[in-house]
Order: sequence, then structure tokens, then C-alpha cells
Amino acid sequence: MTYCVAMRLRAGLLFASDTRTNAGIDHIASFRKMHQFQIPHQREIVVLTAGNLATTQSVISLLNQRLQGEGDHLLKVPTLYDAAVLLGRTVREVIERDTDPHDRRSSVDFGANFLIGGQIKGEGPRLFHVYPQGNFIEATEDTPYFQIGESKYGKPIIDRVVNYETTPLDEAAKCTLVSFDSTIRSNLSVGLPIDMLMLRANQFEMAMKPPHRIGRDDPYFLALRNGWSAGLRKVFDDLPNEPWFDA
Amino acid sequence: MTYCVAMRLRAGLLFASDTRTNAGIDHIASFRKMHQFQIPHQREIVVLTAGNLATTQSVISLLNQRLQGEGDHLLKVPTLYDAAVLLGRTVREVIERDTDPHDRRSSVDFGANFLIGGQIKGEGPRLFHVYPQGNFIEATEDTPYFQIGESKYGKPIIDRVVNYETTPLDEAAKCTLVSFDSTIRSNLSVGLPIDMLMLRANQFEMAMKPPHRIGRDDPYFLALRNGWSAGLRKVFDDLPNEPWFDA
Repeated sequence: MTYCVAMRLRAGLLFASDTRTNAGIDHIASFRKMHQFQIPHQREIVVLTAGNLATTQSVISLLNQRLQGEGDHLLKVPTLYDAAVLLGRTVREVIERDTDPHDRRSSVDFGANFLIGGQIKGEGPRLFHVYPQGNFIEATEDTPYFQIGESKYGKPIIDRVVNYETTPLDEAAKCTLVSFDSTIRSNLSVGLPIDMLMLRANQFEMAMKPPHRIGRDDPYFLALRNGWSAGLRKVFDDLPNEPWFDA
Repeated sequence: MTYCVAMRLRAGLLFASDTRTNAGIDHIASFRKMHQFQIPHQREIVVLTAGNLATTQSVISLLNQRLQGEGDHLLKVPTLYDAAVLLGRTVREVIERDTDPHDRRSSVDFGANFLIGGQIKGEGPRLFHVYPQGNFIEATEDTPYFQIGESKYGKPIIDRVVNYETTPLDEAAKCTLVSFDSTIRSNLSVGLPIDMLMLRANQFEMAMKPPHRIGRDDPYFLALRNGWSAGLRKVFDDLPNEPWFDA
């Protein structure tokens, strides 16, 4: 599996992804799921991937390969909406190419989900979730974040904390790491290291700021993990026992 | 959907179930998912159900109807293991009866999951998870609890808190209600009221202790929900921000 989160807040964008892939519990590997496309000071686009690794790698390869060509590509499209359309078209192209229409018995799922976000000069930061079918939805002020992959364990803390207007990026990063901690604890197929990237609105500084990689021994992540665990336990212990139980 | 939890601890057994069923988001109803079978001072058996409502209702109806008959039934089987075998056989019987083997296009899922636990005089408390296929697993000291239905949102707090040897029943009940709160917040198809039943080991007092029903206005549940929410938020706010982000 996989866990990726992206948020679009008033303060800017935040992207995070784990690096574990698996084909069965006995076949685990590490792959980067965060991909960057940029023209310094002009546009910065980040793509996060989840799902069939052959599909996601092919999509990213085609997006990169076409940066040199005549047709549409991510460094040329005029808006992030057009970038999402282009990504969706590429997803459909790869899945159609790899699916044998006559093989009805195959149980292989070629599907993949993508988050694409960033900023192109001339418009504000935007964020999209592109489905395996190639269609997509855009993050709004009401729902400022998307998750792909194993989304359930890490969702409650984001719902409790993140607000489009008021959450600063450093708090969003902290929340995202707590969300990853919950997910990693409960789903073995999500694993460290975590790649994380923050893009402040209207700064176009991605070129100067590569993704931060958070590994097993990262002291901040360890402190967060231990502090969260001990804090939860304390809150739990401080809550009253139910009065209707005669012990 | 549904959310049911059962735990087998040294102190005894705890069962909890929500009451919401749905056939699509526009078709929601309330059904009890906790069912009791007992001979005072001799045996107490509790069954929790999740899955296709036609299947679970039929299984419970047959289990009840057969209490009067000549064959095996839940008030006669010598051990809880045999109760699980009987339940599994009844599940298979209902699913086979209701499935048309010639209809390959039907996408209806007749499947259902069951938790069955309790105590029969002569052996200790036991707890089983019976699958739609009729086979089953038993809770152990390493894994003292089972969930059926929407299990993910409410699992982390149980993993953090519950221990077979050391968790008393009142703490298990508190933990279970926090687990329900997380689940109800995140999955609309799980809903109040909650039915909860605790059976202390070797007491055989179920006849005197009907399930406790926790509704929307239950003051203890409200206090727990608010205290947990405020406590989590405070723990989160007290955690440090990540040092590698230059804000």
C-alpha cells in the first residue's frame, strides 16, 4: 500500500508521501512516490502517486519524457487545471495500454491514484486528486486536503486539526507527521522514510528547497511519536470511567 | 456499515455494537446487532453481527428457533468452541440458501461476520470471530480483541490501551467508547445508540445485567467525547513544531 497526503491552505501547499511498495507481504521495496516538475520562479508542480507501481512509474516516465517534445507537457500547460487534465489523460493512456481487453479473468488491478498540486505564475496554489479513470476533483476551502492509499488511520487527526484559513504550514507538517505515525503503526505496508515538501504561496522557492526526508532515526519524528503516544495515554487515563459500571 | 468490538480479558468479556444499518447512504435504519443466549448461572453467550442484514437476521432467527428443537443449539452445545462451529454452520446454511449458483452477474454480497463469546460453566470465558465462510478464529492473550465492520478508525486506541492481563473492564469500556467515537466521527454509516455489555469472568450474572444502551444524549459519552477531543488537541498543540521548517 501507500500513504500520501497533500494540503492546500491559505499559507501554501504541503505534500507528504511514504516510500514503501509491496507486491504481497513477502515482497517489499522502497520507491519514491513524490515527483517534482519546475521552472524556477515560474512554476512548481508536485505529483504524489499510489496504486499499481507499473502504472505510476509509466505515468511519471511519460510525463518526464514528454517535457522535451512538441506536445503538451507539465512545464508548458497554462494552468494547474490543465496539468490535472494532462495527468488524467496520461493515466488513461497507460492503463489502456497495459490492460488486455480480451482477458476477463485477470485479477490484476492496474489502477492508480495521483495527487497533483503546486502553483503556476498567474494563478494561486491549487491541488487535485486524479482518479484511475482520469477524472479528478480539486481541493477547496471546505475540504483543503486529499489522501491517497491507506487513508483511514491517519484521517481523524487531520479532520480535528486542519483548517484552510487558520492552519500555518508548520502546524500542518506536524499534523501530517502524526497522521503518518498512526498509519505506519497500523498498516505494515506503509513505511518510513517519509518525503515531505512545503511550498509557501506565491514564493516559487521549490528550486531552493528539496523535499525533506524523514527516516527511522529522525530525532524530531521520534520525539513527535513518543510525545503523541504518551500524551494520548495521559488524556485517556485522565478521562473518567463510566458511572454505570458497578465494578 | 457497522462497528462491533468484543474483548476477552483476564477480568472478563466486553461486547459493544452500534445500531445503524444502511442499504446505500439514502436508506438508513436502526437494528440491534447484539444478541444474547443464556441459562442463568450456567451459560451466557453473546453474538454480535455485521454484514448483510438479511443474512445476519436469518442466522439469528434460526439460532433462536432451534433452541426449542431436538438438534444442536446454543443452550445445549458443551463448549463455546462448539457454539462457534454451530454458528459457522448456520452462516453457511443461510448464505447457500440465499445465493443463486446460476446467477453469476449478481453483485449482492450475502456475506456477514460474527463475534461470538461468553462462558459456559466448566470452561473459562472465550471469544471467536466467525467468518462468512463459516470458519473462525479465537481470541488469545496476545490478541485479546476482535472488531467487525468498520474497524480501522477505532483500532489505534485499542492497540494503545488494551492488554489482556492488566486492563480492567471499566477501562476497557472507556477505551471501547473512545474507539466508537473515532469511528462514528469518520464513518457516517456507523451510528448511535451503542449497546454495551460486560461479563465478569466466572460470575454468570448476565441475567441481572441487560446491555447498557448509550444514546445521543448520554452524559457520560458526551463527557468522554468532549474530553477526548479537547485532550487530543492540547497534546497536539504542546508537541514541538518541526525544526527543519524555516517559516
